[in-house]
Amino acid sequence: MKAVITVVTALLVAVAATNEVHRSYDNDHQHQRSSSINGRQAATIDPAEATSDFWRQKAQETLKAKLQEAPVIAKAKNVIYFIGDGMSAQTIAATRMYLGNENKMLSFEQFPYLATAKTYCVNRQVADSACTATAYLSGVKTNYGMINVGPHVPRYSCTYNRTESEFLGLLKWAQEADMATGVVTNARITHATPAGAYASITNRDWEDDSYVTNAGCDATKYPDVAHQLVHGEVGKRLNVILGGGRRHFVPSTQMDDENVAGSRADGRNLINEWKEAHPNNATYVWNKSGLQSIDVTNIENVLGLFDSSHSLYNLEIDDQQLGAVKPKLTDMVDAALKMLTKDKDKGYFLFVEGAKIDMAHHDSRPRLALEETAEFSRAIELARNITALDDTLIVVSSDHGHTMTYNGYPKRGSDILGIGGYSDEDGLPYTTLSYANGEGYYLTYKEGNPAERVDFSQYDLTDHQTLYMATVPLNAESHGGEDVAVFASGPMAHIFRGNMEQNVLPNLISYAAKIGKYKENGGDGDGQPGSGSSLALCIQLMVVCGVTALLGQLKW
Amino acid sequence: MKAVITVVTALLVAVAATNEVHRSYDNDHQHQRSSSINGRQAATIDPAEATSDFWRQKAQETLKAKLQEAPVIAKAKNVIYFIGDGMSAQTIAATRMYLGNENKMLSFEQFPYLATAKTYCVNRQVADSACTATAYLSGVKTNYGMINVGPHVPRYSCTYNRTESEFLGLLKWAQEADMATGVVTNARITHATPAGAYASITNRDWEDDSYVTNAGCDATKYPDVAHQLVHGEVGKRLNVILGGGRRHFVPSTQMDDENVAGSRADGRNLINEWKEAHPNNATYVWNKSGLQSIDVTNIENVLGLFDSSHSLYNLEIDDQQLGAVKPKLTDMVDAALKMLTKDKDKGYFLFVEGAKIDMAHHDSRPRLALEETAEFSRAIELARNITALDDTLIVVSSDHGHTMTYNGYPKRGSDILGIGGYSDEDGLPYTTLSYANGEGYYLTYKEGNPAERVDFSQYDLTDHQTLYMATVPLNAESHGGEDVAVFASGPMAHIFRGNMEQNVLPNLISYAAKIGKYKENGGDGDGQPGSGSSLALCIQLMVVCGVTALLGQLKW
Repeated sequence: MKAVITVVTALLVAVAATNEVHRSYDNDHQHQRSSSINGRQAATIDPAEATSDFWRQKAQETLKAKLQEAPVIAKAKNVIYFIGDGMSAQTIAATRMYLGNENKMLSFEQFPYLATAKTYCVNRQVADSACTATAYLSGVKTNYGMINVGPHVPRYSCTYNRTESEFLGLLKWAQEADMATGVVTNARITHATPAGAYASITNRDWEDDSYVTNAGCDATKYPDVAHQLVHGEVGKRLNVILGGGRRHFVPSTQMDDENVAGSRADGRNLINEWKEAHPNNATYVWNKSGLQSIDVTNIENVLGLFDSSHSLYNLEIDDQQLGAVKPKLTDMVDAALKMLTKDKDKGYFLFVEGAKIDMAHHDSRPRLALEETAEFSRAIELARNITALDDTLIVVSSDHGHTMTYNGYPKRGSDILGIGGYSDEDGLPYTTLSYANGEGYYLTYKEGNPAERVDFSQYDLTDHQTLYMATVPLNAESHGGEDVAVFASGPMAHIFRGNMEQNVLPNLISYAAKIGKYKENGGDGDGQPGSGSSLALCIQLMVVCGVTALLGQLKW
Repeated sequence: MKAVITVVTALLVAVAATNEVHRSYDNDHQHQRSSSINGRQAATIDPAEATSDFWRQKAQETLKAKLQEAPVIAKAKNVIYFIGDGMSAQTIAATRMYLGNENKMLSFEQFPYLATAKTYCVNRQVADSACTATAYLSGVKTNYGMINVGPHVPRYSCTYNRTESEFLGLLKWAQEADMATGVVTNARITHATPAGAYASITNRDWEDDSYVTNAGCDATKYPDVAHQLVHGEVGKRLNVILGGGRRHFVPSTQMDDENVAGSRADGRNLINEWKEAHPNNATYVWNKSGLQSIDVTNIENVLGLFDSSHSLYNLEIDDQQLGAVKPKLTDMVDAALKMLTKDKDKGYFLFVEGAKIDMAHHDSRPRLALEETAEFSRAIELARNITALDDTLIVVSSDHGHTMTYNGYPKRGSDILGIGGYSDEDGLPYTTLSYANGEGYYLTYKEGNPAERVDFSQYDLTDHQTLYMATVPLNAESHGGEDVAVFASGPMAHIFRGNMEQNVLPNLISYAAKIGKYKENGGDGDGQPGSGSSLALCIQLMVVCGVTALLGQLKW
């Protein structure tokens, strides 16, 4: 019986994979894209949209595609896990229009399965990137600002029982299953989100020893995040480490590769220590050409640190003509996958953060946020295109929402970053996008006369540095408390469905990849539903259905 | 052969239904609910949340439940379609906390399948309730403000070719398939959303003849919405019509049941005309006791109009002690289902709008909106509890978003309607919930000194009439352009997945119920996989039903 199941499953996987490819990457709504670059011009609308039949036909096609999609029932040999930091539903919807039109779908929106996740942390209703990383990477909700330390420990503590309270998640389980592993971000590699993959610490800000020491802790006994990346259990085994944040690896008395001083107080150069720890088949790179000239065939470990702190925004890289020096997210994902996919027999687990979406929102600069979301979408498109649907699970989500909304009743074809309407109270225009709080507050009212709103039609809304309106003045715009979407494609993607707590995601992923609690031999997960009765029914149905279908008689 | 399929399918449905019941209505996160009524006090948090094991165990339970869920592969004999008007993702998330805690799930959030829908209309990026009703009820996107007339026709026109341009959707297809039908709302029954079920008109505001005439059209040839409800093709066949809006059925020279003048200019009393059109086994009711004393056994048609205009808000009904007179949404759904389910042999299609969520947001009054969302959730809970998972498909969605956001980093246990934090710029508190625009603008700044923000801690945030902050002054807060969620439970609910255009929903529903294009004999839908790709359908069928069983046996 088991052999029959295996054969049938293999067939199903093959057919399903074909169907999904057909559906997901034939974006039938992308009929007429704007000729603009970076959404600077309004998009054109397909004139056929003005007919009822256009919509009827599209709906019919979508139903047909959905009926032909079949789940991929197979082990996820490889997993790529993308987190768009702060990528709220509004951000996704607005990015469609930044890239062309409302009916555009971002690469991951074309994935067949979708769930939503609740992001609150144990002590805050609206979460930060540290407690959420702990949830979606390690399966535990914890306190705001903390990474991979249980919620019974207070933030900033360095005196708790570490053995009992600390943990690591998906990357550790992947390494235990002998998968190659990598972490990619365009934030500092020691920032909260990537740190969730390899570090355990009660304060996300302790990225190097100087912060630990300043907090009154002994950094030689309570290692900072950068130290954990180089010497920690998971960090030292990572095959691919790409991001920013050199300063936390370099002493304050030394200059880094771009002649910027480090920030470590202990005099240690962790880049050198990483090189010493990986004496063979390893390379350190610090710019785009270095990244792109890695001898993939012979290199097993790469550390790439491309900035002293976070990467620049995409649009800043373009403005400053740094495209030859600074890799964008897609460049890093491309390099990481070249490294991780070279050994066809070995599975891999790659964790990628699109970090700058969140930072742009905190800055009240939506144009930057939409371009970062577009870059994130491109990186995922690349990953899906060069990997196989029958063995590579791709999961795309966000850690938390933001306060940007998308308002008014603007006409189709309007620039999403432009004017959305005019107030019926004071007659002044308002932008389609705005924030609930942030520095944009000060742009909302006239300087010297804060009682009067500014006329946004006088602003240069094509400038990516322009702040957008906010209701409440905050130094940094805050996160939002609404749920985030989870998109999945590939083996076992169909179990990503419905609404769930964010900390369920590591269970779904490790189940699909058969790692951690769900590893093939010796996993202690009791998630296996051991019911034989429904199997019997299913086999019967398969046989009946198969015969009937072949006879062409099945009407349903 | 067909008999075998039927037997196997029936067995599978039974198993699946049991699984879904087990999962959906055992809300394992609802451990400690607040003792407060209507969220007026902060909720308590389960102390066990402060342990890592709590989260690990919950995640394991969720995975297990997901693996045990099986699709219900059967015809949807009955369909209940709920639309929460303006029920954005933020509204849902905030209502959880209004009802108890962050880890509360509303009734429909427990449904196993979830999709998201893009709501834009043909000529607007952010939609209204008329064009969206046309999309989610009839499968066509059209122009802002228009109902069931193709997008090639301009708004306000009454001179177009009506035969070629008008259409009706799901309710018509249901009636053609001899299903009993009903429409329930707590708005005026002639308002845009319910009108989408039975009327075709180029301007949503033409609810009675006086508006049509005022627009320069001949109301005797271009019938208003109320007229279409009583005399139209679908309207006259509706078994259950429950809502507000008596004024549009009564002449301006007459008083209605509550002594309020009507607004019709043509002197016609459409309530009387409805009675005349249904001389036998029909009843008209206008208050809660009338609704609850319908002789269900003998009555085949009911018209219930409970207000001159829209219903009161739930909290207003409570405040004014009108609970014995005014039915709430759940009362109406209860009565409608008693009528529609009495004939066990006949299928039914019920369309329900929770209308006042949207109205409360337009008024910038979130407490009202959250209570209306809670009522909507209760109505759905009732419907799911008294119907069978193996024959009744329930779909829950929204027509469009709103601009309310849920911000700051408030502590767990905080009142969702209270203070979320303090500005690090001016030190003043801000509320967790706020709007991008609306009348709340005037509450944001001090009267007589609009340069200074008000101190919200001095406001009574427990008063449901309190306006909440807004960035831009608008007479009515606007809709939002983000996607809406779609929740599904019951037969074929599993085809509601991924991201899609809103106008695909009628195709999915009519496919599940085998009506319209997908009717059993003579449907012209080429989405019938039986007609073209039997094998593909078979594989789909085998996989979707067999996932659970296979997973249970394979040592995953």
